[in-house]
Amino acid sequence: MAGKEGYQTLYRHSKAAIWLLLYLWMACFSLPASAEEKPNILLVFLDNFGWGEPGFNGGGVIRGAATLSIDRLANEGLRLTNFNVEVQCTPSRSAIMTGRYAVRSGNGTVPLGEGVYGLVQWEVTMAEMLAEAGYATGMFGKWHLGRTEGRFPTDQGFDEWYGVPNSTDESVYSSLPDFVESGLSETYVMDATKGSVPKKVRPYRLDYRPLIDRDLTDRAIGFMQRQAEAGKPFFVYLPYTATHFPTMPHPDFVGKSGNGPWSDLLLQIDSYVGELLDTLDQLGIAQNTIVIFTADNGPEALSSGESSMTVETAIHGSAGPWRSTLFTGYEGALRVPFAMRWPGKIEPGRVSDEIVHEMDLFPSLASFSGGKVPSDRVIDGVEMSGFLLGQTDKSGRDGFIVYMGNDIFGVKWKNWKLHFKEQTGWNGVLREYTMPRLYNLMSDPQERDNVLFPHTWVPKAALPQLVEHVASLKKYPPVPTGATDPYRPPNQ
Amino acid sequence: MAGKEGYQTLYRHSKAAIWLLLYLWMACFSLPASAEEKPNILLVFLDNFGWGEPGFNGGGVIRGAATLSIDRLANEGLRLTNFNVEVQCTPSRSAIMTGRYAVRSGNGTVPLGEGVYGLVQWEVTMAEMLAEAGYATGMFGKWHLGRTEGRFPTDQGFDEWYGVPNSTDESVYSSLPDFVESGLSETYVMDATKGSVPKKVRPYRLDYRPLIDRDLTDRAIGFMQRQAEAGKPFFVYLPYTATHFPTMPHPDFVGKSGNGPWSDLLLQIDSYVGELLDTLDQLGIAQNTIVIFTADNGPEALSSGESSMTVETAIHGSAGPWRSTLFTGYEGALRVPFAMRWPGKIEPGRVSDEIVHEMDLFPSLASFSGGKVPSDRVIDGVEMSGFLLGQTDKSGRDGFIVYMGNDIFGVKWKNWKLHFKEQTGWNGVLREYTMPRLYNLMSDPQERDNVLFPHTWVPKAALPQLVEHVASLKKYPPVPTGATDPYRPPNQ
Repeated sequence: MAGKEGYQTLYRHSKAAIWLLLYLWMACFSLPASAEEKPNILLVFLDNFGWGEPGFNGGGVIRGAATLSIDRLANEGLRLTNFNVEVQCTPSRSAIMTGRYAVRSGNGTVPLGEGVYGLVQWEVTMAEMLAEAGYATGMFGKWHLGRTEGRFPTDQGFDEWYGVPNSTDESVYSSLPDFVESGLSETYVMDATKGSVPKKVRPYRLDYRPLIDRDLTDRAIGFMQRQAEAGKPFFVYLPYTATHFPTMPHPDFVGKSGNGPWSDLLLQIDSYVGELLDTLDQLGIAQNTIVIFTADNGPEALSSGESSMTVETAIHGSAGPWRSTLFTGYEGALRVPFAMRWPGKIEPGRVSDEIVHEMDLFPSLASFSGGKVPSDRVIDGVEMSGFLLGQTDKSGRDGFIVYMGNDIFGVKWKNWKLHFKEQTGWNGVLREYTMPRLYNLMSDPQERDNVLFPHTWVPKAALPQLVEHVASLKKYPPVPTGATDPYRPPNQ
Repeated sequence: MAGKEGYQTLYRHSKAAIWLLLYLWMACFSLPASAEEKPNILLVFLDNFGWGEPGFNGGGVIRGAATLSIDRLANEGLRLTNFNVEVQCTPSRSAIMTGRYAVRSGNGTVPLGEGVYGLVQWEVTMAEMLAEAGYATGMFGKWHLGRTEGRFPTDQGFDEWYGVPNSTDESVYSSLPDFVESGLSETYVMDATKGSVPKKVRPYRLDYRPLIDRDLTDRAIGFMQRQAEAGKPFFVYLPYTATHFPTMPHPDFVGKSGNGPWSDLLLQIDSYVGELLDTLDQLGIAQNTIVIFTADNGPEALSSGESSMTVETAIHGSAGPWRSTLFTGYEGALRVPFAMRWPGKIEPGRVSDEIVHEMDLFPSLASFSGGKVPSDRVIDGVEMSGFLLGQTDKSGRDGFIVYMGNDIFGVKWKNWKLHFKEQTGWNGVLREYTMPRLYNLMSDPQERDNVLFPHTWVPKAALPQLVEHVASLKKYPPVPTGATDPYRPPNQ
């Protein structure tokens, strides 16, 4: 039995223990979130990259290139087989940046004219949200949300940007004599920091087209190194120009796959992803970095039965089992590859077919980073951090509105899709239905068999979200396409 | 230092050691291969099961059911993405059993009449080859290679058989009044042992259709248990009736997936595969058992654009990115899921897109089991044990002849396919070409874009195998369809 002294010792020790616990408790809960606690975010965003390309979706070797690094990323994290996007470059980038349907921001279509377009200053981008939460923000790649003063990435929340303001089509034609004589302005690769006018680095022509993604990778790696050294949490948005036409792999990869340029390019992307993952390991920050690998929309060309391309260096992409190309309302346009790794937070090897939309990343990443979701406007994204971390099996999203341009083509709801309009490929013919067509996406991934009869119950279940969406567009009028700054939509 | 006695002891010990080594050396090399050295073989063979179904090929959850056990099997072994079969039930089963093109054995098509058909006694089946090599051989499932005396599995090398002689169509109609009145004989589920007449267990009707695969699994497990106890190497051929129409999952799985009967059936198959793998673990023989998971041919029905079914309970299958259904010359018919596990021998997680044909299993399994490949006849299968074990990257097969029934539809060579005839689905229209059409399978998995121009070099490279094959058919005339025993083809 303990004597008097024994009790005193015990008392002293337990008093110290109580103080220690109290201190730890305060450190955990009452101090502001420290830099170490905010996860870095690396968002790799491919261009026109179909669901069927990576090995983790049954592609890889059948596409002529084993995608070992991309598959490793997926195996170490969460793979979503039903991750959806808007079906054109500009709308998809608008939606992921704002967490809102692109139509709300006046970005329903890829801009074809020369006027002002992109995001008005009033919009809050993912970069702005994360910068406000204390993040260093870098973007390396294709923007496609504005090419005029005040509309560049460094005007929209990014501290740094290297890349192209528009798309990669321009590399094909911007040095053609007819183009030059037309008086249209050539596109430049740009290098920018927040607060200064972006510098023109070089024209974006076919000589640089195969090289750009190498430079984007180097810039992203350099940025991550600098932030890791500074101990600052970072957000890297890496919208590669691959696999947008023209298909031109870097000289280091030409002939490497033995299966032609498309497969060479797949190897190249996979190799760059490997470098990015290696960098995180070398910097010792892999554990505290969320890595997302996805794409803006489905493939640009399939076999001629659906939609072909005349650009010499365009090669058929693969939407896997899903139908059609970008610029359609089919699953081939909407579903893109998606993998998300966060070691220690996301269980390795998880796969889910729950419906998720790119808009959902905004509020979910806000939740992970301590960022603020704007409350003065409509945010269409669903906060699903619990789902992404595996705390619940349900994503919380039952469906979404299927836009093609500014048109509502249909409504996706659970495993069903109701089509009001269809277009068989990006260059197909538009068909409009007086009676919508209904497909079951699980039994009929090619969306061919209209099963509206007998499933007349599906519209009853699927349409309320459309009614609500249309009412919301009426109540909160969208930013008009081409609106100039300063602009603020009414009621918001 | 050792004295005299010490040296003597050492001498005696070393003498004993030398004898022991000599004995071990003799046991290893000069004794006939012992039972322990021969790997067991479990061949799971699904019916009309498309490339796109299992999770390991990008299916699984998008088909409404996570296929965790099947994926585990693939992850622990080798996955072949370019494993090819003949495109109908009977020819495919003929080819896998004999290592020969089905046309050589008179089994080019599924038999529609009531006469004698199947394998003549002269053919040497995989079961006969393995029985001769000392294996216990059990078959549980659908045969489709003969339904008359002398043509049952137990007449063709299997010690035991439980299952149906023909196909699962018969479960749909064999109790219909018109069928009964037609005087046609009803199909029975049969139970047989070598040397006796198969017993009729029960009619194969819709009441038993959902239950049969449960019984096949139990029988296979019981057989493996008995052989493991007896210390005898075994070959189990398990041609399940799933996923042939009608799609009727077992009552234990009805509603289990929440995504309808097709997905319930996927869960069921996956669960049975899990039971088989668990059995191998429990028996302590997983290390010494080759498990192969594959199928006879591609899916029976896709969306209406390609080929639909009117049978009420048939549901669209998935060929993944590949075109069309069974009974065509497209990749959707030819490529089936393939996984092969052999712990310690096959490196886990290996994936290859090398061309392999089901005929190649005969000589390759002969090599693994010490079996003899007949030398008195044409064997079309390529011995590729070195490739399967990962000792070489190349399968040794550049291509094969694409049969549809007894017709040569085309030639597959590397990533190219030359089509002389096409049929857009199992019930499609036959198109015959005066100038063959050429597709690139890697860039154009849907086989839509004829690239004969400019690739006129491909026929020059692809056609020699066809010339050789046709010459071989002339020199060694095939067994005529419907030949009765005893029959021996000339020149063989």
